[in-house]
Amino acid sequence: MSEFRKDPITGRWVIIASQRAKRPRQLGTSNSPTQNEPCPFCTGNEALTPPEVWALREANTQANAPGWRVRVVPNKYPALEREGVWRDSSDGFYQSQRGLGVHEVIIECPDHVVNMAELSYDQFADILRAYRERLRALNGDRRWRYLLIYKNHGDRAGATFEHLHSQLVALPSVPKEAADEIDGARAHYTASNRCIYCAIIEREIATGERLVFNHESFVALCPFAPRFAYETWLLPKTHAAVFDRCSDEMILEYAHALRETVTRLNCALADPPFNYFIHSLPTNEAAGAHYHWHLEMLPQLSRAAGFEWGSGSNINSVAPEDAAKLLRDVAL
Amino acid sequence: MSEFRKDPITGRWVIIASQRAKRPRQLGTSNSPTQNEPCPFCTGNEALTPPEVWALREANTQANAPGWRVRVVPNKYPALEREGVWRDSSDGFYQSQRGLGVHEVIIECPDHVVNMAELSYDQFADILRAYRERLRALNGDRRWRYLLIYKNHGDRAGATFEHLHSQLVALPSVPKEAADEIDGARAHYTASNRCIYCAIIEREIATGERLVFNHESFVALCPFAPRFAYETWLLPKTHAAVFDRCSDEMILEYAHALRETVTRLNCALADPPFNYFIHSLPTNEAAGAHYHWHLEMLPQLSRAAGFEWGSGSNINSVAPEDAAKLLRDVAL
Repeated sequence: MSEFRKDPITGRWVIIASQRAKRPRQLGTSNSPTQNEPCPFCTGNEALTPPEVWALREANTQANAPGWRVRVVPNKYPALEREGVWRDSSDGFYQSQRGLGVHEVIIECPDHVVNMAELSYDQFADILRAYRERLRALNGDRRWRYLLIYKNHGDRAGATFEHLHSQLVALPSVPKEAADEIDGARAHYTASNRCIYCAIIEREIATGERLVFNHESFVALCPFAPRFAYETWLLPKTHAAVFDRCSDEMILEYAHALRETVTRLNCALADPPFNYFIHSLPTNEAAGAHYHWHLEMLPQLSRAAGFEWGSGSNINSVAPEDAAKLLRDVAL
Repeated sequence: MSEFRKDPITGRWVIIASQRAKRPRQLGTSNSPTQNEPCPFCTGNEALTPPEVWALREANTQANAPGWRVRVVPNKYPALEREGVWRDSSDGFYQSQRGLGVHEVIIECPDHVVNMAELSYDQFADILRAYRERLRALNGDRRWRYLLIYKNHGDRAGATFEHLHSQLVALPSVPKEAADEIDGARAHYTASNRCIYCAIIEREIATGERLVFNHESFVALCPFAPRFAYETWLLPKTHAAVFDRCSDEMILEYAHALRETVTRLNCALADPPFNYFIHSLPTNEAAGAHYHWHLEMLPQLSRAAGFEWGSGSNINSVAPEDAAKLLRDVAL
């Protein structure tokens, strides 16, 4: 059973999910017993996952059978439980709540591809369509206050399976990192009547020193104060607060931009492990003038360690100006 | 040159330290050219480090020569610069400041020991004395507002050298993680007139389900809402806000407790990589009734990944009640 628990000193919530200790690993432990087992994400092995909740399929193919291009299934070892009665188990000192939420896996391709840069442009567009459709579907459920799409790519970025996949978590409250961003953006908007992300985009295009590329509708840049070496943000240039309102046309441009981001990272840094996630305004927020959806790409070349956990700050040994130059200068 | 930079959206500070990209690694890269080079932390190789700033030495031995038991040197590739003119380089939108601070390495033993549990009780006491003396010395410098002792143990916990060592950073402001704790503790004290850590200790000793051990002066427990599997906090039972005010007697009891914590982790989890750090009240704070110094031990059995970075929350697959039982049941 999953549980949200609150640290009584800092107010920080964690998810305690004992059932996840049982999950198999294909990565990370060299003598894992599952390494020679069939990949549950490969086409033909659909029976090895929970039944699919959504798929992009060829006409006349059946659910949970081959014929799909992107397939979404519940996480077999979920951090959160989808069904159950909300229960607050606070004892007056310690606070905890039943771990209700959604945890899905987006299987990005039917074949056993392990390097995202090998996917075609059409496959990137399919993946982004899957993200959008799952967000739209889950936004209809009023229990969830925040939806997070994220990806762990490579053992050193926390992936447990190598077959390309992303994950989606639906949460009953807005998590701290997203809330800090939204609050900061709102404060800036209140003070200046301007979206801070729009201001950053304008400034970075003007100076160019942290710019990775500048497409018609999307811009990729290394942020001024990055936590990670080669951290790169991908943002739509026209103000938009909610990713899942993207038009079909924008999805195509986004696919170009995300594929180029991954390709530049791979060329510059020899296929680094990375995490990325999409931050978007919760759709139940009334107006979105202050917030701007975006993707944060975090290469994992070193580890957060004692300093980072003890201070809550990060030491980054690559200046974003140097990172952007290296990524920008890749010849594609 | 080091720089503090502030993210304009969240207000989060990072340290950009390009000079650290040049540091050698003995761990983490399998074909590192430095793996066969002499260990700069071993006795006899004192010339390979910057000159020592402090050491516990046998009588009649000279600085930067053998005869030491614990030796403290400036980090050769520091995240922060000790000397320099304070400079604020804000441009009205982006804020940055010269990266002034102190970054030292505490070499914990003269021989090439790589497993902390192999150190004797006397050696643990020497290490803790070194922590205390360096904190006392740096507390005299009014430029520093926060001092953080931390340890990266093992490649997966971010160590770049295997010879046992810890690090000390002096910062010109209180970092976010420490500030969140101090603020939370102060709020609890204001509301209840009681230290929240004292309340936690009393509660955990009474129920026992998250207790690892209960010595005369120190208690080890798995916290109610741990970010990491087997996370363990080590706290003095009598209220005290500042670690470096510890008496010689307390240092001896602390050495027993820290050694037992490391030994139990090693026995239960087969020498796991770990980080630990000491959180103590900045000594320039007037009164310490609301805060309680402690050590947080964070085994690194899995990685923070996309969910953690995107949400600011953690998924932990081991409940602290199960973790405490395993650590408590180790037969020593």
